[in-house]
Amino acid sequence: MTLQAIKYELGKLEILDQLLLPRESLYVRVSRVKDGWEVIHNMQVRGAPAIAIVGCLSLAVELQGMVYDDKSRLRQDIEGKLNYLCSARPTAVNMKIAAEELTAETNKLFSDESVIDAEDMKKRIIKSIESMLEKDISDNRAIGGHGAQALLSHVKSVSNSKVRVLTHCNTGSLATAGYGTALGVIRSLFALGKLEKAYCTETRPYNQGARLTAYELVHEKIPATMVCDSAVSALMKSKTINGVVVGADRIAANGDTANKIGTYQIAVLAKYHGVPFFVAAPLTSIDLDTPNGDRIVIEERPAMEMTHVGGQQIAASGINCWNPAFDVTPADLITGIITEHGAFSPSELAAKIAPLKSKPS
Amino acid sequence: MTLQAIKYELGKLEILDQLLLPRESLYVRVSRVKDGWEVIHNMQVRGAPAIAIVGCLSLAVELQGMVYDDKSRLRQDIEGKLNYLCSARPTAVNMKIAAEELTAETNKLFSDESVIDAEDMKKRIIKSIESMLEKDISDNRAIGGHGAQALLSHVKSVSNSKVRVLTHCNTGSLATAGYGTALGVIRSLFALGKLEKAYCTETRPYNQGARLTAYELVHEKIPATMVCDSAVSALMKSKTINGVVVGADRIAANGDTANKIGTYQIAVLAKYHGVPFFVAAPLTSIDLDTPNGDRIVIEERPAMEMTHVGGQQIAASGINCWNPAFDVTPADLITGIITEHGAFSPSELAAKIAPLKSKPS
Repeated sequence: MTLQAIKYELGKLEILDQLLLPRESLYVRVSRVKDGWEVIHNMQVRGAPAIAIVGCLSLAVELQGMVYDDKSRLRQDIEGKLNYLCSARPTAVNMKIAAEELTAETNKLFSDESVIDAEDMKKRIIKSIESMLEKDISDNRAIGGHGAQALLSHVKSVSNSKVRVLTHCNTGSLATAGYGTALGVIRSLFALGKLEKAYCTETRPYNQGARLTAYELVHEKIPATMVCDSAVSALMKSKTINGVVVGADRIAANGDTANKIGTYQIAVLAKYHGVPFFVAAPLTSIDLDTPNGDRIVIEERPAMEMTHVGGQQIAASGINCWNPAFDVTPADLITGIITEHGAFSPSELAAKIAPLKSKPS
Repeated sequence: MTLQAIKYELGKLEILDQLLLPRESLYVRVSRVKDGWEVIHNMQVRGAPAIAIVGCLSLAVELQGMVYDDKSRLRQDIEGKLNYLCSARPTAVNMKIAAEELTAETNKLFSDESVIDAEDMKKRIIKSIESMLEKDISDNRAIGGHGAQALLSHVKSVSNSKVRVLTHCNTGSLATAGYGTALGVIRSLFALGKLEKAYCTETRPYNQGARLTAYELVHEKIPATMVCDSAVSALMKSKTINGVVVGADRIAANGDTANKIGTYQIAVLAKYHGVPFFVAAPLTSIDLDTPNGDRIVIEERPAMEMTHVGGQQIAASGINCWNPAFDVTPADLITGIITEHGAFSPSELAAKIAPLKSKPS
């Protein structure tokens, strides 16, 4: 069964505490907005889409337990709580976007005379939040399906057998509302009976591959093997790797893709070994206002993330570290970009995506 | 001052305990062969050349404290103790080679009538061991000098300025009798005033870069920055890297080079970014009996090295790991191979090295 990092039903929310992974699998109850703020702030939930969903669901759960007799009071409450949620991790832009959408929806319902009272309005807001959760998962499933087809269509020589796919970082149920993007492609291949083996990198320095992706793969009994970030080239040479699939933090209009540090060199190595290289991400990650990757500013993280693991010092005292969180993979190394609307080559991306972006979701 | 991992004077030997690095710099006294066996077996000293030197020096120190009145008894003792030292880490072939050399020398001295008594013979054996130490260091210094020149000659555009060099794993004073091979090249560049900055990788999974190379660079105040193994491509793109220099575990006759896992992909990335890629190793690492890299068997190490750091679990339970200790860099990715006799292109290696190899050292 797909790992459920977010367990939600009307009035009840639990999230898998990612701070305890991979050693302990413990679900934390989130009963109100204050709890939502805490689990986001403490990084018990991480991954931009997951943060937004958990924040909004904490609002849904709190609203479900409240009784309102005044639409204006309800509107005020929702707006205040959403602002508060945005302060949990100010750099997580998805929470801000979700808050803006919900505020707009709240204002619309407030002015809509067919919404007869506060309780009616409350129910509709909760429904909106629930549909955000559903949309994220269904988008991911669509990415998974398109990605599996795109990958299989590039691997003609093994059309009747199974594929071996490498991924980097964590892009699964633990980073999204569920299912995942790049890891969703691997899930789809597995569900189709077309996956021989998934390979995941450790993904230093924060070890998202070792801690989270490996956890998801083991949990779902997907045949998988982990390699060090340094072993990717040896892997491609000594085993047949049929494709690489990674996620994206931001995709520029020309297809240049910012993603977790290490992605760029895997793309170079894939090119050298003739392995197709795919990026899987929802439409929201494609930023048509950014013409190319040179315009993407790369966050540099503290040295401590490299010199220490779990509080334990692993590097020589006094050594300088260069710790960029992301790198940019140039479009010419990318075979295809997989979205919930299908797979596109980097060169056709802007033309195909622009009309889809302008449609209301 | 160059880091002294092995401190030796007649009758006295101390080694830097590498198990405590990088947190503690503690020298351990080695007073006899039994101590030598222990520090090798416990991995307080590591690196094939360093193991052989420490083993033999422990014999020199023990002999110095003993009085022999019979050449035959001395010969027997030396042979027995060398056999014992070889059992400390049976896979360390350098200790075995050194033991064979010393045994041959002992037999020669035993039969040599000009060696008048056991004390004379003992002194000469101690001198032989001391000259092994001196030769290893002087070979490394020669590698350093040739390497610095080779690197600078490939970096014409910066002929009047300083270079930035990347290395991988540990090939310094901590792995050799002193000075180092690839790290010796960096030491030489620094001594010549030609080094702007050394970059070292972490070198997962055993972190020799983070623990040992970083330690040596900090110790000697060489300007240095550490990067994750995953950040090499981003480094080459965003900073100007003028050259890569790495060590070698074994070099085949055609120039294919087995070295620490991760070396191969750095060579691919160097090629992609137009960065010259050098291998630095003594003649003894070149194996003309191995025609090419396909014949080199790669040791696979336990998963535990990847899933745990210092006893602490860092990866999901139950994940499979592929943990090759080495990889093979094909000769066509190597700009030059630097030995104590100069730098050679892989294609000329066999022809140039064969006559040097046949000379008695």
